[in-house]
Amino acid sequence: MRIIGIDPGTGLLGFGVIDAGKDGKCELVDGGVIKTPVKEDDAVRLQTIFEELTDIIAAAKPTEMAVEKLYFAQNVTTAMTVAQARGVAILAGMQAGLKIAEYTPLQIKQALTGYGRADKKQMQEMVRVLLGLKEVPKPDDCADALACAITHSMNRRIS
Amino acid sequence: MRIIGIDPGTGLLGFGVIDAGKDGKCELVDGGVIKTPVKEDDAVRLQTIFEELTDIIAAAKPTEMAVEKLYFAQNVTTAMTVAQARGVAILAGMQAGLKIAEYTPLQIKQALTGYGRADKKQMQEMVRVLLGLKEVPKPDDCADALACAITHSMNRRIS
Repeated sequence: MRIIGIDPGTGLLGFGVIDAGKDGKCELVDGGVIKTPVKEDDAVRLQTIFEELTDIIAAAKPTEMAVEKLYFAQNVTTAMTVAQARGVAILAGMQAGLKIAEYTPLQIKQALTGYGRADKKQMQEMVRVLLGLKEVPKPDDCADALACAITHSMNRRIS
Repeated sequence: MRIIGIDPGTGLLGFGVIDAGKDGKCELVDGGVIKTPVKEDDAVRLQTIFEELTDIIAAAKPTEMAVEKLYFAQNVTTAMTVAQARGVAILAGMQAGLKIAEYTPLQIKQALTGYGRADKKQMQEMVRVLLGLKEVPKPDDCADALACAITHSMNRRIS
C-alpha cells in the first residue's frame, strides 16, 4: 500500500510518500515540502498548493492519504490560514481518488513511540529508524508528514 | 461586472451572484446555498463544495469572487472546519480564473449601511433594497453572500 502523508501549512506544506508492506515494513518513496511565498495572496498560495500536490500525487501514485489534524490553542488567524491549506490538500487527495484518513498529533506520537509525550527529536529519529534511513528526513515538515503516513500504515495493519 | 459572493460554511455555504453596473446599480443573477450533510466525512464535504461551486461558477460566469473573511473568537474547531471549506471555495474561484477579494464582516456592514454595528435584520433589508427585490433573499447564508458581493461592487467603484 502506498500512502502519502501530509503535514499542513501555508508557508511550508510537508509531504511524504511511503510504501507499507504487509509485514509492516515501510519504505521511503518520496518526500519534501511545497513552499509558497508569504508575500503572495492567500488565494494564489492555495492554488499553488493544490496544483503542486496534484502533480506529486500523479507522479507518486499513492492510494491513501493521511493528513495531520490541526491543533491550535493560540493564534486563531494562523490556524485558519493553515486550515484553508489543509482543506485544499484534502481536496487534491479526493480529486485523485485517494482514501483520506486524519490523525491528531497525539495519535501520531503514540503510534511511533508508544508515548504521547515524545519530543520532536525523538519523533524524527523514529521516522528515520522505521524507514531504514541513514539521516533524518529534512526539513521537519517532511519528517512530520512521513510520521503521519507511517501512523496510517500501522493503523491499517491493526484494523 | 458580474460578481459571486461567498459566505463560507460547511453545513451551508452561501453564494450570491450579482451584476454591478457602472452606475452602481446591482442586480440579482443567482443565489442559494450549497448544503453538505453533517454526517459525511469532512473530505467528502469539501469535495462536494468544490464541485458544486465549480458548476455554479461555470453556469453563472462571474469574473470576480468576493469572500467573507472569518472571524471567530470562540470555537476553534468549528473555525477550522469552516476555514477548510473557505479554502476550497477560494480554490474553485482561482481554478475558474476569477479575481478574488476578501472582506471582513465589519467592512461588509460599513459598505452596506455606513454603520459597523448594523444588526442582521438591517443588513438583510439593505440587501433587499440594493438589489431591488420584494423579499429578503433566503436563507441567511445566501443574503450574507449577496451582501459580500455588493460590498465588492462598491469597493470596485471607489477604487
